[in-house]
Amino acid sequence: MSPPEVVATYLVESYLPLEDAAEVIAGEQSTGTFVAVARETAELRERFAARVISVEELPPTDHADLPGIVRPAGALRRSGQVRIAFGLDNFGPSLPNLLAAVAGNLFELRQLAGIRLLDLDLPSAFADRYPGPRFGVTGTREFLSRPDGVLLGTIVKPSIGLPVEELRIVVRELAEAGIDFIKDDELMGNPPHSPLADRVAVVTEELDKIAARTGRRPMYAFNITDDLDRMAANHDLVRDAGGTSVMVCVNLVGLAGLAWLRERCELPIHGHRAMTGVFTRAPGLGIDFVAWSKLARLAGADHLHTNGLSNKFYETDEEVLRSIAAVRQPLLGGYQTLPVLSSGQWAGLAPETYRRTGTTDLLVLAGGGIHGHPDGPGAGVAAMRAAWQCAVEGGDLDAAARAEPALQRAIDTFGTPHG
Amino acid sequence: MSPPEVVATYLVESYLPLEDAAEVIAGEQSTGTFVAVARETAELRERFAARVISVEELPPTDHADLPGIVRPAGALRRSGQVRIAFGLDNFGPSLPNLLAAVAGNLFELRQLAGIRLLDLDLPSAFADRYPGPRFGVTGTREFLSRPDGVLLGTIVKPSIGLPVEELRIVVRELAEAGIDFIKDDELMGNPPHSPLADRVAVVTEELDKIAARTGRRPMYAFNITDDLDRMAANHDLVRDAGGTSVMVCVNLVGLAGLAWLRERCELPIHGHRAMTGVFTRAPGLGIDFVAWSKLARLAGADHLHTNGLSNKFYETDEEVLRSIAAVRQPLLGGYQTLPVLSSGQWAGLAPETYRRTGTTDLLVLAGGGIHGHPDGPGAGVAAMRAAWQCAVEGGDLDAAARAEPALQRAIDTFGTPHG
Repeated sequence: MSPPEVVATYLVESYLPLEDAAEVIAGEQSTGTFVAVARETAELRERFAARVISVEELPPTDHADLPGIVRPAGALRRSGQVRIAFGLDNFGPSLPNLLAAVAGNLFELRQLAGIRLLDLDLPSAFADRYPGPRFGVTGTREFLSRPDGVLLGTIVKPSIGLPVEELRIVVRELAEAGIDFIKDDELMGNPPHSPLADRVAVVTEELDKIAARTGRRPMYAFNITDDLDRMAANHDLVRDAGGTSVMVCVNLVGLAGLAWLRERCELPIHGHRAMTGVFTRAPGLGIDFVAWSKLARLAGADHLHTNGLSNKFYETDEEVLRSIAAVRQPLLGGYQTLPVLSSGQWAGLAPETYRRTGTTDLLVLAGGGIHGHPDGPGAGVAAMRAAWQCAVEGGDLDAAARAEPALQRAIDTFGTPHG
Repeated sequence: MSPPEVVATYLVESYLPLEDAAEVIAGEQSTGTFVAVARETAELRERFAARVISVEELPPTDHADLPGIVRPAGALRRSGQVRIAFGLDNFGPSLPNLLAAVAGNLFELRQLAGIRLLDLDLPSAFADRYPGPRFGVTGTREFLSRPDGVLLGTIVKPSIGLPVEELRIVVRELAEAGIDFIKDDELMGNPPHSPLADRVAVVTEELDKIAARTGRRPMYAFNITDDLDRMAANHDLVRDAGGTSVMVCVNLVGLAGLAWLRERCELPIHGHRAMTGVFTRAPGLGIDFVAWSKLARLAGADHLHTNGLSNKFYETDEEVLRSIAAVRQPLLGGYQTLPVLSSGQWAGLAPETYRRTGTTDLLVLAGGGIHGHPDGPGAGVAAMRAAWQCAVEGGDLDAAARAEPALQRAIDTFGTPHG
């Protein structure tokens, strides 16, 4: 049996032959040195050098050249998909040390006019080290007593500055509206003006009352993002108060911070992707969401934000669908994570979202689409449920809107359905 | 007294009027919502909204437009430096939650054709929360009994695959050569083929012998980068063996991971910047080293890699000098961090480096420049010391080379001096 390897797939753009550019990456990220040194034997290179598996030339892109590149006179710019294998023995099944190899210095190489880590194939040793999501889709559905159907959620608005006694009223309205899930904004961690402890006390008290009255308790993801010891203490605070979910901004605490939390976390982790754009948005540089999401899942995200169709941010629907598919794809035989669709979501997007994802294993968050419904959040939730039921049954949205006035009002307010 | 604020400086590029683009950032990252919601009162906005302090138009850049942008027909592309103030009350002195505000979703905004966080001015509350570097320049000099002069170091080569008994020989040679500092490669964490425990045992044994014989003990920065609990255990292993420094790849464990380590770390932290390029290299997107280095210093980096002049990576000398100056700049009245110059460094760069930085409070790492010296690492170190002495004294490098054959050999081997 050959020794286990990690295979990294890159978009490589260069004025050098792509094979040469690929070898530069493999060298820099494993045994290569710029000056010949003693003790770097052929045997050592044979065992530890990263290996270029394939170089597949792609049509030219219109991506801007990265600064500082090597550009021989008259050389053509080439783009290609390059797969490189790194022996696991080089770093072991450690997320931080994996990143050193597959994403360490390579973004700074002069030989590359563009470099983007697209995907990672990981050997099973990572599954042995990282337990991954503890609850995932199934566990979240169990918490909510919703064995099937789309899960509907929202974000507390306004995000910053809401006094806790007003937060109580917002949560009460949303819970009475029959929503499945509520979350803090990523801008609301543990700020002086609204300490997490106060929010937890008020929200859990309200949710207890709702649960006693209706038998249904929405999941509330408290944003516990903070310095790590504080984050762990925040988690304990939520758990001890009977809370059922914690939200973590994965990039702000780091993948290693998330994996560390996972070891001591007893609640579903709602993984927010704030700051992902810093490494995804430049098309010729960075780390693709597909690669990043695998690491976030290994690190323990039960839910992971993917953005939604017709969102207010920069991504196209095709990119969003690829992200949703990536999160749902089996990883090392497990690591079930629930994709979270957000940004500009409302009832009218249900048919298109269902048609193109083919699943209801989604947590769809509507901010304005629920808070901004002219008849209140209850009507916002009713409209979304009716639209999703219609979508799953393959019905006609206009007909559904005639049967459910809240849906008709949503369409009248937020525009024509998508697609 | 007005309430404390964080001021973030951005490069903003947009086809909207820059003032409008700046307001979009301030809104998205504080009180803004895309749909009017109840309870977002004027009073709330007055207290919590981020405030655009200044918009200074800059000459147009040639940066590529980010994808997915809003571009009204006929609109001109504008670039500007924008300063935005965020009330500290919005998030408190927490590095992760600070990032949510100053760098959260803004990289994904359609209104921006380019967006880069250039700098951060932090209020003193951050100094109260984060102790920062425990040793810094002064502490590192004390460990090394080198009260003045440049500090010279190197990286163990080959980086991957060196058997520990050969590592022993390399360390012995380097220590006998009179080097101040040796570090693991960022690719060498705790891999199965060369466990950290084995490396620590062998290296500290060798350094103990050298210290007993010569009275001088080089600092060795063991790469303890790993999952966080393992990283802490790695630190303890190094400390218990009598090691004097630990290396951490800051981006791979996250700023929060570094701050967490700082709380339990008893040795100087050598901060490696692997993967920084992913957010610095696209000129129209990302986070500038100047802003990032402040956060890494707050989080506790005693040493921080800045790259060096004439380096093999993409950065220009001007960019490197700006990074070195940023690390040396006083921050909140303290946070002394030692800049680490590396990549392609050798004796011939000393005069230009000293002339342009004006300091010897630098740790200069030469890999090939020491390991690759034709007369061995001892000659490599001697050449660098002679070149730095010449630089500080304002002498002529050729004259110094006539007095120090190792320097002449270095010049003959590695090329003409820089500048």
